[in-house]
Amino acid sequence: MGGVPLPLLAMSGIDGFHAVVPAGGSGTRLWPLSRAASPKFLHDLTGSGRSLLQSTVARLTPLAGTRIVVVTGVAHEEAVASQLAPEIRIVAEPAPRGSMAAIGLAAAMIEREDPEAIIGSFAADHVITDLEAFEDVVHEAVGVARTGRLVTIGIRPTYAATGFGYIRAGAGLPAFDTAREVVEFVEKPSPEVAAQYLASGEYRWNAGMFVVRARVLLDLLARWHPDLAEGLRAIAADPALLEMRWESLSAIAIDHAVAEPAAAVGAVAVVPAGFGWDDIGDFASLGSLLPGRSDGVTVLGDGSLVEVHDSSALVVPAGGRMIAVVGIDDVVVVDTGDAVLVTTKDRAQDVRKIVEVLKEHGRERLT
Amino acid sequence: MGGVPLPLLAMSGIDGFHAVVPAGGSGTRLWPLSRAASPKFLHDLTGSGRSLLQSTVARLTPLAGTRIVVVTGVAHEEAVASQLAPEIRIVAEPAPRGSMAAIGLAAAMIEREDPEAIIGSFAADHVITDLEAFEDVVHEAVGVARTGRLVTIGIRPTYAATGFGYIRAGAGLPAFDTAREVVEFVEKPSPEVAAQYLASGEYRWNAGMFVVRARVLLDLLARWHPDLAEGLRAIAADPALLEMRWESLSAIAIDHAVAEPAAAVGAVAVVPAGFGWDDIGDFASLGSLLPGRSDGVTVLGDGSLVEVHDSSALVVPAGGRMIAVVGIDDVVVVDTGDAVLVTTKDRAQDVRKIVEVLKEHGRERLT
Repeated sequence: MGGVPLPLLAMSGIDGFHAVVPAGGSGTRLWPLSRAASPKFLHDLTGSGRSLLQSTVARLTPLAGTRIVVVTGVAHEEAVASQLAPEIRIVAEPAPRGSMAAIGLAAAMIEREDPEAIIGSFAADHVITDLEAFEDVVHEAVGVARTGRLVTIGIRPTYAATGFGYIRAGAGLPAFDTAREVVEFVEKPSPEVAAQYLASGEYRWNAGMFVVRARVLLDLLARWHPDLAEGLRAIAADPALLEMRWESLSAIAIDHAVAEPAAAVGAVAVVPAGFGWDDIGDFASLGSLLPGRSDGVTVLGDGSLVEVHDSSALVVPAGGRMIAVVGIDDVVVVDTGDAVLVTTKDRAQDVRKIVEVLKEHGRERLT
Repeated sequence: MGGVPLPLLAMSGIDGFHAVVPAGGSGTRLWPLSRAASPKFLHDLTGSGRSLLQSTVARLTPLAGTRIVVVTGVAHEEAVASQLAPEIRIVAEPAPRGSMAAIGLAAAMIEREDPEAIIGSFAADHVITDLEAFEDVVHEAVGVARTGRLVTIGIRPTYAATGFGYIRAGAGLPAFDTAREVVEFVEKPSPEVAAQYLASGEYRWNAGMFVVRARVLLDLLARWHPDLAEGLRAIAADPALLEMRWESLSAIAIDHAVAEPAAAVGAVAVVPAGFGWDDIGDFASLGSLLPGRSDGVTVLGDGSLVEVHDSSALVVPAGGRMIAVVGIDDVVVVDTGDAVLVTTKDRAQDVRKIVEVLKEHGRERLT
């Protein structure tokens, strides 16, 4: 868990800009560190002393001041609140209904309070380096969003990733420094296609960061999913309806619900981003974010608990026990109070298979 | 630990035959399962429900009845007693002084009670399969020992082991079925030499099993190490001298003290043994003794605590936690209450390096 609540600096941020932070997902590829009951955004996975959620909120404070809404599941509401300053608003979803419902509900609430508000949506469990570049990009995106567009932030690909969707950028937008039109959003590609995307220079990773006027987002949603837009606005108008109406909302991702159809009608722009970004999708990703030791080991946690001989490893000694690794390369060892995981960096994506097996074997308590 | 004391069957065994069981060594290559404070002979390493010590005593009972002496360190006296029937005598060494002092003290004590006694020495932490063959071999060895020879039991090599000393067998002994003269004892060989030994058919593994008249052993010792023989006989005559004289005894292995020089003067015989034998020298050896599961995993302990995906592994879930292994072959994972080891079967011999490192880093508590 991420320690004490984060003190807020007195910052007012960009005029009329509100941040929305969806905090969901159980992070099964980071099991046993991340669990359904304690998902990765609640953990300090970078050794910074802050949870990913706390880092996300801290990163947004210079841009949005205290105008930050965290949307999370009811099960995590208390843990989220314990990590954040009381000024941060928390919206608790009765059940997961996809990213469109989560972000759309926050948008609808903000729209009622400030009809001209611009919102920016940023996941609670991503890591960003070069905060100055991040702020510059958001400033540009807010400027473009004021023209009525849905704006996405496109991460510069650093390798031919097959785990992310891509954004194909088109012509530059007149009057903006870096913003470009979005030709299309594309799904996670095959390795060959990913290599083509990387080589072309026209594609950006879709990190799920959207900046848009709240009203524009809901109006776009109303074009393709009118019931969902109406439901979200109704709940925002009368929060007492949340429990009753939530289950009947369509569970759909914001990319499919709005971003893809809006791109097809020319309503989406992309601001290319050069800052470092990682979604800590698995332990290989986690390992690459941490500094290595001279003995070949990368440790997240108390390094005095890790002894190795002739090995290279990522070790997470979160169970308080000594971890010893002998004569093995690229291994991943994660120790927690009730479960130990051993895998390799190459196979880190398959950790979710264990979570499936545990569920099959009636061991949900461990997932 | 090995559970309840072992009930003794009412067996009298071979007339005049006494078993000596040296129970020493911390088994650093089996860390963190085996510790200085809890060495491997106290553990059930085969999933039999008995510790190695209990299995050793059970194996000797049909041969020696209750005439069994376990020689162990004072630190382990209580744990050893808790695992054995009260009829089994336990001799506590004040400090480790090598196998000659341990076995020699028991021999001197037995010699005083029965001057014609034959003793057989069998380590507390070896595994033997085919007990009928074992008993036949000991019967033959006792017969040869009655002729005044020092008799060793020579294990048939099953591979070109470099971790054991070898016994070179010579001509057959007239009047015995299988016993042969010993030409020489040789030290642990290089891989090339081990392969030659295996191919020649003349060499046997030295498993440290000696059968000899107690008086003959001490008289042979007196030829090459008179002070040691005198000291051991003096302590046996007056056990009150143990504390005072023990530290001054030469610390030497029985092979160097007696077996090698006695072989050079033609006083040693070998009884070839065909039973299965293993000293559980490391986790690779441990893994080979246990049955594998259909999912590619071998488990020592509660199999319900082990989940794997696309892996082959030896897992010891001795800490009560779930152990998950994903996408890795020939890995060894040992979980205990305060330490976790990850290595490979190939590198299992190097586990002792971690014990050295832990000592260097002031963590003797874990060794």
